[in-house]
Amino acid sequence: MRSDNNSGVSPEIMQAIIDQNAGDTEAYGHDEITEKCESVLQSLFENDDLKAFNLISGTAANSLIIGTLSPTFGAIFCHQDSHVYGDECGANEFQTGGAKLIPLKGANGKITVSELEDAIDRFIIGEAHHSQPSMLSIANTTEAGTVYTPDEVATLSAVLKKHNLKLHMDGARFANAIARVGCSPAEMTWKVGVDAISFGTTKNGTLGAEAAIFFNNCDDGSFIYRRMRSGHLVSKMRFISAQIIAYLENDLWLKNAYHANRMAEKLFEGLKDADGIKFSYPVESNVMFAEIDKAVHEKLWQAGFRFYTRNTAGISSSRLVTAFNTDTSLIDKFIDIVST
Amino acid sequence: MRSDNNSGVSPEIMQAIIDQNAGDTEAYGHDEITEKCESVLQSLFENDDLKAFNLISGTAANSLIIGTLSPTFGAIFCHQDSHVYGDECGANEFQTGGAKLIPLKGANGKITVSELEDAIDRFIIGEAHHSQPSMLSIANTTEAGTVYTPDEVATLSAVLKKHNLKLHMDGARFANAIARVGCSPAEMTWKVGVDAISFGTTKNGTLGAEAAIFFNNCDDGSFIYRRMRSGHLVSKMRFISAQIIAYLENDLWLKNAYHANRMAEKLFEGLKDADGIKFSYPVESNVMFAEIDKAVHEKLWQAGFRFYTRNTAGISSSRLVTAFNTDTSLIDKFIDIVST
Amino acid sequence: MRSDNNSGVSPEIMQAIIDQNAGDTEAYGHDEITEKCESVLQSLFENDDLKAFNLISGTAANSLIIGTLSPTFGAIFCHQDSHVYGDECGANEFQTGGAKLIPLKGANGKITVSELEDAIDRFIIGEAHHSQPSMLSIANTTEAGTVYTPDEVATLSAVLKKHNLKLHMDGARFANAIARVGCSPAEMTWKVGVDAISFGTTKNGTLGAEAAIFFNNCDDGSFIYRRMRSGHLVSKMRFISAQIIAYLENDLWLKNAYHANRMAEKLFEGLKDADGIKFSYPVESNVMFAEIDKAVHEKLWQAGFRFYTRNTAGISSSRLVTAFNTDTSLIDKFIDIVST
Amino acid sequence: MRSDNNSGVSPEIMQAIIDQNAGDTEAYGHDEITEKCESVLQSLFENDDLKAFNLISGTAANSLIIGTLSPTFGAIFCHQDSHVYGDECGANEFQTGGAKLIPLKGANGKITVSELEDAIDRFIIGEAHHSQPSMLSIANTTEAGTVYTPDEVATLSAVLKKHNLKLHMDGARFANAIARVGCSPAEMTWKVGVDAISFGTTKNGTLGAEAAIFFNNCDDGSFIYRRMRSGHLVSKMRFISAQIIAYLENDLWLKNAYHANRMAEKLFEGLKDADGIKFSYPVESNVMFAEIDKAVHEKLWQAGFRFYTRNTAGISSSRLVTAFNTDTSLIDKFIDIVST
Repeated sequence: MRSDNNSGVSPEIMQAIIDQNAGDTEAYGHDEITEKCESVLQSLFENDDLKAFNLISGTAANSLIIGTLSPTFGAIFCHQDSHVYGDECGANEFQTGGAKLIPLKGANGKITVSELEDAIDRFIIGEAHHSQPSMLSIANTTEAGTVYTPDEVATLSAVLKKHNLKLHMDGARFANAIARVGCSPAEMTWKVGVDAISFGTTKNGTLGAEAAIFFNNCDDGSFIYRRMRSGHLVSKMRFISAQIIAYLENDLWLKNAYHANRMAEKLFEGLKDADGIKFSYPVESNVMFAEIDKAVHEKLWQAGFRFYTRNTAGISSSRLVTAFNTDTSLIDKFIDIVST
Repeated sequence: MRSDNNSGVSPEIMQAIIDQNAGDTEAYGHDEITEKCESVLQSLFENDDLKAFNLISGTAANSLIIGTLSPTFGAIFCHQDSHVYGDECGANEFQTGGAKLIPLKGANGKITVSELEDAIDRFIIGEAHHSQPSMLSIANTTEAGTVYTPDEVATLSAVLKKHNLKLHMDGARFANAIARVGCSPAEMTWKVGVDAISFGTTKNGTLGAEAAIFFNNCDDGSFIYRRMRSGHLVSKMRFISAQIIAYLENDLWLKNAYHANRMAEKLFEGLKDADGIKFSYPVESNVMFAEIDKAVHEKLWQAGFRFYTRNTAGISSSRLVTAFNTDTSLIDKFIDIVST
Repeated sequence: MRSDNNSGVSPEIMQAIIDQNAGDTEAYGHDEITEKCESVLQSLFENDDLKAFNLISGTAANSLIIGTLSPTFGAIFCHQDSHVYGDECGANEFQTGGAKLIPLKGANGKITVSELEDAIDRFIIGEAHHSQPSMLSIANTTEAGTVYTPDEVATLSAVLKKHNLKLHMDGARFANAIARVGCSPAEMTWKVGVDAISFGTTKNGTLGAEAAIFFNNCDDGSFIYRRMRSGHLVSKMRFISAQIIAYLENDLWLKNAYHANRMAEKLFEGLKDADGIKFSYPVESNVMFAEIDKAVHEKLWQAGFRFYTRNTAGISSSRLVTAFNTDTSLIDKFIDIVST
Repeated sequence: MRSDNNSGVSPEIMQAIIDQNAGDTEAYGHDEITEKCESVLQSLFENDDLKAFNLISGTAANSLIIGTLSPTFGAIFCHQDSHVYGDECGANEFQTGGAKLIPLKGANGKITVSELEDAIDRFIIGEAHHSQPSMLSIANTTEAGTVYTPDEVATLSAVLKKHNLKLHMDGARFANAIARVGCSPAEMTWKVGVDAISFGTTKNGTLGAEAAIFFNNCDDGSFIYRRMRSGHLVSKMRFISAQIIAYLENDLWLKNAYHANRMAEKLFEGLKDADGIKFSYPVESNVMFAEIDKAVHEKLWQAGFRFYTRNTAGISSSRLVTAFNTDTSLIDKFIDIVST
């Protein structure tokens, strides 16, 4: 329950890695598998113009996209609890050469139109003393485990368009969001104004494969150089491409995400009325936050469960995460321990 | 009333510049006047070990000090309304190569112990995903025009010491703070835990002269290189040094600051009970903020007064600033217009 | 023959990846396999104090090490033909926040003592206008395919020690150098003054696994933050660690490197007296450079051989690379085509 | 003879500073004098579209221009002896966030077409491993004291245009170059393909005033933010603007430069056949380099002369600089001492 990063690799994806190991091929992405990978992503997103660049970590995807979209003197809006703001050790400031991430509040990990408008309003355009607003970065699934609907994304992007700002989506758990909403990837992204997405797969069953995807020709051609100079151009790229292809084949990605989401829902249903545990946000994906009483917490650890708990300003918050390979029996056991 | 930057140069300081123009001397600070300047600052601060480096802007002083004191992956705490956070176009992020400035709240432009402790508490030391707390930057005079007492500074630095963090003071209006409190420069800085100060003089009567001052051997020897590579090593340095020397001679700096503070106090006394104007913070220096009714605002502009007004989230806030050369009659006129 | 990056993965290593996929474990390197990996590297280098950090690319290893060892105002000496200077798109300048790489000449891709001393001599220590010498980065195997002996490394490091400079070794093809010289890894590194090495394995049979290794406590504790903020902290780290362990087990790494070296030697022996091809440097590893006549070049391409050729200033230079899985018959075929 | 930075301020310019100190005005360049200053520069360069930004150091002008013109992954060509390459402590690498300065050889401090073409040729456009050529930076007057003619500049810029590269001119001693050649500022810059110039005045009689000037709309609008975040937006800007206006009024800049050049010529004429001193380059401005015998060197120092001498690789090179205020008698004395 600690993290979907702790899980291993889906069997189908491991097989794809093994299959890829026959014969030599071109390095650094100049190979047919990588070409096919981009083409598969174009089909998935129903968008022949998208550009996809493979990477090995979500932080690389986020920060390289943001470094491409924002000038060094930019102001980048994001949720105060977001990964890009608080859990990447300043990666986005680093990649932009020192741009400013502006933390916004918002219930359930989501940014609202009024918060966004107020935040933009605090910057004077053309005033050299002020960082210049450049973009918004949202996560879907959010860091709180909630999910933006396409309509909610569209409302935010409408505000951005008025101010000529870009929209980035951190899709580390994009599959879980799509599984929740049931819309198409296109409907969740470029059709509602998303300019670039960090398309994550690692938390949902691959060994390590992420893609930075640009819509609307938003990459000014600098991405390949930024990736290389950050040490993120992998030599044996075909092994990453093969993972992404296998991940999307036969809807494996959605099956994995549905399962993880269902396990979370099951946990929530089993415990929503229980004593000693109180969920902090609506449960909409595979990530949940809860205040767990000390006694219950101890029982869970004694039973072998491990999860992150933060104590800030007197409040204890535990993060529970299900994964593509979480067994139902584990959920039952968790419910059982809390309930008795 | 718009800014103390709009004022010219104190006659004594202009004379020092003129006097300095006799004969050639070494460039880049390898001259006797610059040596004397550091020695004069050591006397002022009663500290023979301090290192002083001349600069031409407050932003240069702040960002070069912060770049010296914080690692590139650092978290730097500051007030959300501070100059370093909001009015330097990302200078501190730039100089640190992408460190994170963490905005803290606090009434009247001041940071409190509990806000500071809560903020530090949000970072896990040794956790690679988190920026690592490195320092606090406070301004004295604050951006709200209020003044920290030495005791208040000491309380904050006690918290910092527990966590091994540095303390920087933005002293763009240090003279006004000292004039207000009446303590010695030493009592306001290193004696209460300040590790480095941006010692400003430009807003209080020089043409353009600031000093980055380090106590406690806090400069690791890198400052001179950081200054040079930022383009801040001035060739005819003696003209800056001469300004600082003249600024401190015969307590000119305090006389200038007393006057500016007095003019602000006079304005406040004349208007604190007036209709159509409401002061936002205690008036403790030469900087005041006020909500001014639209009608009053218009009358003032028609009379020729100019000042900055920001409208954010429906609230209008005007900044009024007095200077070393503000004439009493101007204050009288301002009061008169508002009052009638 | 184009690149050892084009090869796939050694079967033993692929098996280790597969084996690693049983059960969940901690992410981000907080797992037992990663702990074991560092311990295995300590044994290999006979050095219990070394710190090892897993990465996925050689450029990441080089630039993160250099970013840790050099201040932002440093001058970093390197060979003008080295990978760090010319083939990483400015990665080292990026990671250091703008340090200067100083290109040195030297026959056969190697830096000599006199070149190094002259280069250091051009910088005035303590002069703010000058970047300050911080380190030397050499590659072993060099970019020319030649190999430094431990004695040669020791002579360079003796110069560095006089000036208090660090020594980094780019070991992208470290195995091939060790296979050539026959010394121990310790004798090639910390025993002759190397402070840090980029320990490459990807070009010699892994899927993607590199380690940044520090001796002499040269990491000031900042590496883990630099890695994270560069997006190089891989979540499912155990799969990288498992590769490195398998790579070293039963001397697989040396067997692979011996084979690659032997194939290169065979090619050289078969062609050293041939017409239409002239080797540019002594052949000491698995990388060779040669001037190949246009006619011969065409014959080789018609036969299906692919390799990089650069035309600079009228001279054509082709790079030939053998790998752990290069078949003898391929070498025979190559020789045959050139010779007939 | 040490440096033109050691000289003070021309009386006309000091008077302009004094005159400027009457009454308050807008800060940060939003004043009429600064507006006039840009207009005066437009007249001087016969170019109504140029954008001029005031600064206080030549390194600031160079690095902020280069930071504006080159992407962070750019390769910037320059002479190996140039100020931007060797005497700015990495300022240009810093401002670009880690671009690469590529040192080129060239007799007498000048870059030739063939050196430039060979250098560009070494980079593969579109290859992610390579930094991408972005611009050339030349100095006129060069660091060797020689002067490019407009024709020479035009030949270089013709090469650049073929490759879509920009051209920057470091004009720290632009006045001396114009005084030498006798052409108009326009003929030396935008008419022969210069995109931006660091227009220096400090070495030729001002207290501290430089301008970054862009032609051809080469500033993408980012300069004002880069200047601010580097701490280079001076609050009392009018005092800088006033210096530049006075510097250009009545051709003071050319008179000063003519005098300095004449003094250098006089020195050269008096010593070109003398024993114990050998000039290294043609004398074309106010900067000369010479090998001076030890005995002669000692006599000069005993007589009170001071100048920089570098000993590199066994060769001693002394730099002699005349200035706008160098007295003829000083030149006579220097000649006298060497000759007897």
